[in-house]
Amino acid sequence: MPGNSFGQLFRVTTFGVSHGIAIGCVIDGCPAGLPLDIDLIQKELDRRRPGQSKLTTARQEADRVELLSGTFEGQTTGDPITLLIRNKDARSTDYSHLEKAYRPGHADLTYELKYGLRDHRGGGRASARETAARVAAGAVAKQLLAHAGVSIQAYVQQVGPVHLEKPYHQLDLRQIDSNAVRCPDSDTAHRMQAAIEAVRDQGDTLGGTIQCVAQRVPAGLGEPVFDKLQAELARAMMSLPATKGFEYGDGFAAAQHKGSDLEDPFQHEEGQFRSTYNRAGGILGGISTGEDIYFRVAFKPVSTRLQPREGMTKEGESVTLPAKGRHDPCVVPRAVPIVEAMTALVLADHYLRQRSARI
Amino acid sequence: MPGNSFGQLFRVTTFGVSHGIAIGCVIDGCPAGLPLDIDLIQKELDRRRPGQSKLTTARQEADRVELLSGTFEGQTTGDPITLLIRNKDARSTDYSHLEKAYRPGHADLTYELKYGLRDHRGGGRASARETAARVAAGAVAKQLLAHAGVSIQAYVQQVGPVHLEKPYHQLDLRQIDSNAVRCPDSDTAHRMQAAIEAVRDQGDTLGGTIQCVAQRVPAGLGEPVFDKLQAELARAMMSLPATKGFEYGDGFAAAQHKGSDLEDPFQHEEGQFRSTYNRAGGILGGISTGEDIYFRVAFKPVSTRLQPREGMTKEGESVTLPAKGRHDPCVVPRAVPIVEAMTALVLADHYLRQRSARI
Amino acid sequence: MPGNSFGQLFRVTTFGVSHGIAIGCVIDGCPAGLPLDIDLIQKELDRRRPGQSKLTTARQEADRVELLSGTFEGQTTGDPITLLIRNKDARSTDYSHLEKAYRPGHADLTYELKYGLRDHRGGGRASARETAARVAAGAVAKQLLAHAGVSIQAYVQQVGPVHLEKPYHQLDLRQIDSNAVRCPDSDTAHRMQAAIEAVRDQGDTLGGTIQCVAQRVPAGLGEPVFDKLQAELARAMMSLPATKGFEYGDGFAAAQHKGSDLEDPFQHEEGQFRSTYNRAGGILGGISTGEDIYFRVAFKPVSTRLQPREGMTKEGESVTLPAKGRHDPCVVPRAVPIVEAMTALVLADHYLRQRSARI
Amino acid sequence: MPGNSFGQLFRVTTFGVSHGIAIGCVIDGCPAGLPLDIDLIQKELDRRRPGQSKLTTARQEADRVELLSGTFEGQTTGDPITLLIRNKDARSTDYSHLEKAYRPGHADLTYELKYGLRDHRGGGRASARETAARVAAGAVAKQLLAHAGVSIQAYVQQVGPVHLEKPYHQLDLRQIDSNAVRCPDSDTAHRMQAAIEAVRDQGDTLGGTIQCVAQRVPAGLGEPVFDKLQAELARAMMSLPATKGFEYGDGFAAAQHKGSDLEDPFQHEEGQFRSTYNRAGGILGGISTGEDIYFRVAFKPVSTRLQPREGMTKEGESVTLPAKGRHDPCVVPRAVPIVEAMTALVLADHYLRQRSARI
Repeated sequence: MPGNSFGQLFRVTTFGVSHGIAIGCVIDGCPAGLPLDIDLIQKELDRRRPGQSKLTTARQEADRVELLSGTFEGQTTGDPITLLIRNKDARSTDYSHLEKAYRPGHADLTYELKYGLRDHRGGGRASARETAARVAAGAVAKQLLAHAGVSIQAYVQQVGPVHLEKPYHQLDLRQIDSNAVRCPDSDTAHRMQAAIEAVRDQGDTLGGTIQCVAQRVPAGLGEPVFDKLQAELARAMMSLPATKGFEYGDGFAAAQHKGSDLEDPFQHEEGQFRSTYNRAGGILGGISTGEDIYFRVAFKPVSTRLQPREGMTKEGESVTLPAKGRHDPCVVPRAVPIVEAMTALVLADHYLRQRSARI
Repeated sequence: MPGNSFGQLFRVTTFGVSHGIAIGCVIDGCPAGLPLDIDLIQKELDRRRPGQSKLTTARQEADRVELLSGTFEGQTTGDPITLLIRNKDARSTDYSHLEKAYRPGHADLTYELKYGLRDHRGGGRASARETAARVAAGAVAKQLLAHAGVSIQAYVQQVGPVHLEKPYHQLDLRQIDSNAVRCPDSDTAHRMQAAIEAVRDQGDTLGGTIQCVAQRVPAGLGEPVFDKLQAELARAMMSLPATKGFEYGDGFAAAQHKGSDLEDPFQHEEGQFRSTYNRAGGILGGISTGEDIYFRVAFKPVSTRLQPREGMTKEGESVTLPAKGRHDPCVVPRAVPIVEAMTALVLADHYLRQRSARI
Repeated sequence: MPGNSFGQLFRVTTFGVSHGIAIGCVIDGCPAGLPLDIDLIQKELDRRRPGQSKLTTARQEADRVELLSGTFEGQTTGDPITLLIRNKDARSTDYSHLEKAYRPGHADLTYELKYGLRDHRGGGRASARETAARVAAGAVAKQLLAHAGVSIQAYVQQVGPVHLEKPYHQLDLRQIDSNAVRCPDSDTAHRMQAAIEAVRDQGDTLGGTIQCVAQRVPAGLGEPVFDKLQAELARAMMSLPATKGFEYGDGFAAAQHKGSDLEDPFQHEEGQFRSTYNRAGGILGGISTGEDIYFRVAFKPVSTRLQPREGMTKEGESVTLPAKGRHDPCVVPRAVPIVEAMTALVLADHYLRQRSARI
Repeated sequence: MPGNSFGQLFRVTTFGVSHGIAIGCVIDGCPAGLPLDIDLIQKELDRRRPGQSKLTTARQEADRVELLSGTFEGQTTGDPITLLIRNKDARSTDYSHLEKAYRPGHADLTYELKYGLRDHRGGGRASARETAARVAAGAVAKQLLAHAGVSIQAYVQQVGPVHLEKPYHQLDLRQIDSNAVRCPDSDTAHRMQAAIEAVRDQGDTLGGTIQCVAQRVPAGLGEPVFDKLQAELARAMMSLPATKGFEYGDGFAAAQHKGSDLEDPFQHEEGQFRSTYNRAGGILGGISTGEDIYFRVAFKPVSTRLQPREGMTKEGESVTLPAKGRHDPCVVPRAVPIVEAMTALVLADHYLRQRSARI
C-alpha cells in the first residue's frame, strides 16, 4: 500500500499540500450510527491552527472544515467520511528562493531523491500543514472513542531545558489548554513560555517533549505480534514531522535498572486487575491492560529559523538562505492536538480490530 | 489485517509458540532470482539461540531451520518462502504453576483479557521464542539487501548502568560478535559482562539499549506521510518483546536544544549530498538520505527472575511464584540479531516499495 | 480494510453519495513524473455522464472534475491525487417516497440490515453515481498505462435479445463512440437502439453485456495465486452496480468442450510467443501473456422502471411505488467507460506490482 | 501486498509447490475460542485428494494434514493456525521433458515471463495441488461459519455437454458426495460419468460447471463499494486454476431480459424479508440479504491430456510433448470441495468484517 493511509479498520487517507488548493482526509471504516458533531472537529482544528498566540507562526489559516460525505441526518452511515479544508493564506512567493536550493534538516533533498521532482512551495507533503488533516480525522476517532468511554489528553512536558518533573497523575489535566504552551502546571508553563520567547527573539527555535495519557481504554486492544499497541503508537508518533523519539511506561529509564527495581505486582480491586505502579504504561505483551496508557514523544527544534542559513543547490553549491518564512519558534505546543489525534486513530482502529478477537 | 504479518511488499507472517510443535514464517513477496543461502539463515539463528554462553538461558534449542518452499535450484522463484523450526527442548511442565496465575510484567493477564483463554506454557506467542522466526525471515531480507549493497549492524550500547559513550563511527563494528555481550568496545564489554554476572548471581535481571546502524541504504526509501522510514523502524522495534523506547539521530537529546545548536549543513562530495554531522540519523522527512541510518532501542529488564515473585490468580488472590523458569539475566545481547532482523525487514520492504515511486 | 478502496499500489478510495454535496476519489500511489492531463479525465467523465442522448436518464450533471491535489506544474508528484465532483442536480424530494419503503432489486433493505440506517435519497453509495469517481480515477490510470503503451476499449456486445456475434478483432473499435449505444457495428447498433427505445416507451428497462479488450498489456502482470489477473478483473467488474456475470477468453463456452477442441498451440513471431487463437484471453496461470486480454460482463436490467412497482415497508406491508425517478432504460451503453475505468485500475495496479517480481 | 494471501480479517496465506517438500497454509485472524476439529479438515482434504476413483488422476497423495500451531487444548487461541501437508508421491522425473518446453494452455511461459525462471516440475504454484492448502484453510473457515449456522454446498451442474437443468432447491444436496462426479441427481450423474469415461478413453479432457449454494448466511455481509460480496466471490472463484467464468443469481441470462421479466417483490415472513424468487442470488447492492446465496463457476477442460501435443521451446521451436503426466480427465468433480473452501474463506472474512459495521 502507498503511505498516505493509516489504520486497518478505521482507515484514514490524507491528501493535499501546504500551498495547494486544499488538504483533507477520507475516513473509511467509521461504524454507522455515530452521531457526528462537526463542531468538535472544528474545535480540534482550532487548537492546532497557527496564529493563536504570539508563540506561533504568523500564518493565518481559518482552517474551516467542510464535511463532504459520510453522514445522514447527523449520523455516520458507514460510508466514507470526507473532510476538506481549503487553503487560504498560501503565499507561495515566500518560497521562490527554495526552487533551486535544499534546506538542511528539511525534506527538500530527499523528496527530490525519491520522486525525481518536488513541490518546493512550503515543504509540500512534508509540511506540518498536512497534520491538520490528521487532526480532523482524529476528531472523528475521538468521538467514536468517547462513545466507548475513552479519553485522550496530551500536554507539553519539556521545552528545551525546561522540564516538568511531576508525573501526569499529580497534574490537573483540565488545565492543559489554559495557557499558550499547553503545560498543565502553571509555574512550568510560565518558564516554558519565557524560554520560547527568548529563542523567538533570537530568531531561533526550540525542541521539547509531549506526554500523552489515554484513560479508560478497554483491556484487550493491540494485536500480537507485530501490531502490538505500543508499536502502533510508536509508528503513529514517529510519522509526525520533527519527532525523534518515543518511549512508553518506564521508557529508556528502564534500561538502567534491575528487574527487582521495577517489580510491579498486580492488585485486584472491584473485579479489576491493576498494577501497583503501572510501570508498564498500560500495555503488557502489546495488549492494553485497562489501566492508563502513557507515553512520551520527543520533538527536535524545527530547522527553519529567522536566521540566515546555509543551503545547497542541486549543483552542490552552498547558498545562503534568507532569514524568512513563517514558522513557530517551538512547534511543541501546537503538536499537542496532533499527538492526541494520532493516539485516537490508533485506539479507534484497535477498538474495532478487537471485535474479531473471539468467536 | 490480523497482527502476525509485517511488511507490505516483502511480507512476513510468523507462526508458532514456545511450547508447541514448531515455529516458523512464510515470506511472501521476495523477488525471484535471489540466490538464497540457507547457511546464512542458520547462522543468524545460531546468533540468537539460547545456550551460547553462561550469560544466556540454559534452555537448549538446536533451532535447525528447514526450508519448505520458495526456491528452485538454489534461487528464489517468487513463490512464498517457508522456514520451519521444530521445537525440541520444551519442558511444558516447568510452567504448570502458571496455569492459574498471572505473572506481573508479563502478558499472561492481557492475553486472557483479549482472547478469553491462553496457552500458559512459556508465554505462548508473547514468548521471545517467536523472535526466532523473525530472525529467520530477517536473514532472507539481509540477503536481498546485501544484493543492493546494504549492511546492518547492531550492538549493545548499554547494560544497566554500564554505557558505551563512543559513537558508532569510532568503533570497530567487526568486533561485535567477538564477545558474549556483543559490545564492540572490549573494555566496556568486560564491564557489561561483570554487571550481568552480578545480577545473575542474585537471580535478578538487567535492562539495556541496543544501537543499530544501517549503511549504504539507497536514498529515497520511506513512504510519506504515515510510512516514513523512522515510523516503520519504530514500529518494528517496539513490536519486540521487552522494548520500551526508540530514538533515531539526535533522539530525545534534540528536545533540549535550540535549532541553531543542531545546525547540520549539506556538503557535496563525489556527486553525493551529505550532512556535515548526520544528526538526522540518515532520514529527512521520513525518507533515507543515503547516509548511515542509526537508532537506539531501550529494553527493560525481563520480569522473570530466579527470585520468588508475587503473582495473582484469576480469582484475584496473591500467590508466590516459585523461583524457576529458564531465562537470560540480560536479554539485550541476544536481542542484537533480532534488532538487525527487524531492521532488515523494514528496509527490504521499502527497497521494493521504492520501485513504484516514479514512472 | 474497509471496502471503499481498490488496488494495492495504485490505490483508489472513492467517497460520496448521489444526493450529498460531492463525490470524488483519492488516488494514492500514482508514480511521480506523469504528465497529467485533466482534460482527459473530464472527457471520460463526459462519456459516462447522464443526459447525453435520449437513451439516458434525464438527470443533468455537468460533472465538472476539480483536481485538489497531487500535481505540480502539470506532473504528478507522488502525493495523493484528489479529484472532486460537486453534485448539482440532486432532487432529493424525488425520493421522499422511499424513506419508509424498500424497493425490490435494490440495496435499500440490505444497507439498512447492514448499517442499521440508510440514506434513502437516490440509493446512497449503492447509486451508480458513485461510478463517476471510478471513471475519474480510471482516467488517471489510463494515462499511466498509455505511458506504458496499453490501450483499453470496451463496447456493448448485447442489449437484451440483440447480440453482436462478430469477435472483437473483426470490428473497428474506433467506431465505439460513434453511436449512442456504443456498439462498433453500426447495423447492430441500430437494432440495439431500437430495442432500447421500445422498452423505454413501455417504461421498462433492458439488460446487456459489455466486451472489453486490453491491448499491448505487458507480459507478466498478475500475482499468483489469489491475485491472478482474471481474479482481479472479475472482482473489479462484479463490484459494479447491476453486474451479474464475468467470463474471459473462452468463458462459459469452454465448459462444454473437450480439451482437444480448444487446443491452442504457441507460435513464435518476431521474438514473441503468441497463441494461435488466444482462447485463453491473454492470461495463462493468472499472468498476462502479452496478447490481447478480453472478457465479457453481464448487466441485469435495472430494477427501477417508469412503471408502478411493489415495494415493502419496514413493517412488512406491501406498498405501490410510484412510476417515477430518473433512470436509463438501459445502463449498458453508459457502463462502457466504467468498465474501461475499472480495467485500467486493475492493470495500473499490476503494472506497478510487477516491478517487485524480480531482483 | 503479494498475491499469496486471501482475506482481510480471516487471512490465509498458502505456500508450497506440487513437487517440493510440502504445501500448507497459515491462517491469521481466526477468532479465539473455536473448538477446532482436525478430523473435519482431513475429511475435506480427502474429498479433494486424487486417487479416489477411476475418474481422477492416478497420483496417490495421502495428504495427511499436520496442525503446527494455533490451538491449545483443542480450541483456537487467536494465534496463527498453521496447517502442513508433506508431499509424498512427487515423481519429478515425469516432468523432465518440460524443462525446456512450454505447454500451450499452461502457465509455463507466463511464470518465466514474470519471474525470469520457473520450477518446471508439475507446474509449480500453478499446479492444482496448491488448492489442497486452500481446502485445509477452508475447512477451518467452515467450522467458524458452522458456529454461525452457515452451510455451504457445491455440486457439479455440467460436464461437457451434460447439463443438470433442475435448480438447486429441487435437489437433495445430501446426495452430492454419493457418486464420483458429485452431482446430486443420480440420472444426470450417470450421464456425466459416462461422458468423462468416454473422453478418458480417448486420452482427452472435459470442462464443466459447478453450482454453489450458501445457506443461512447472516444478512449484512459484504462491504460496499469494492468488496461487495459477489465481487469477493468472483475473485475467489476466478483465482482457481482452470476457471473461466462466474455468475450469480440470474447471471448472464439476465442480460437478455427486460426489467419487468425479472420482477421479484419482497415478502415478509416470520419477521424476515425475503424475495419471492430470489433472482438476486441472495445479494443486493453487494450485501447479503439473508437468503440463499448461489452462483455458478465455469471450468475449462484442462490442457494436459494423454495425447501428444505441440509445445514450444524457449528458442521458439515447436516440439511434440509426449502423452504422459497424471491428470484428471475432468477436474470438475474434485473442484467441488475447492469451490466450497473458497466460498467459506470469503464468508468467514466478511462475517468478521461485519462486526465493525455499527457502533
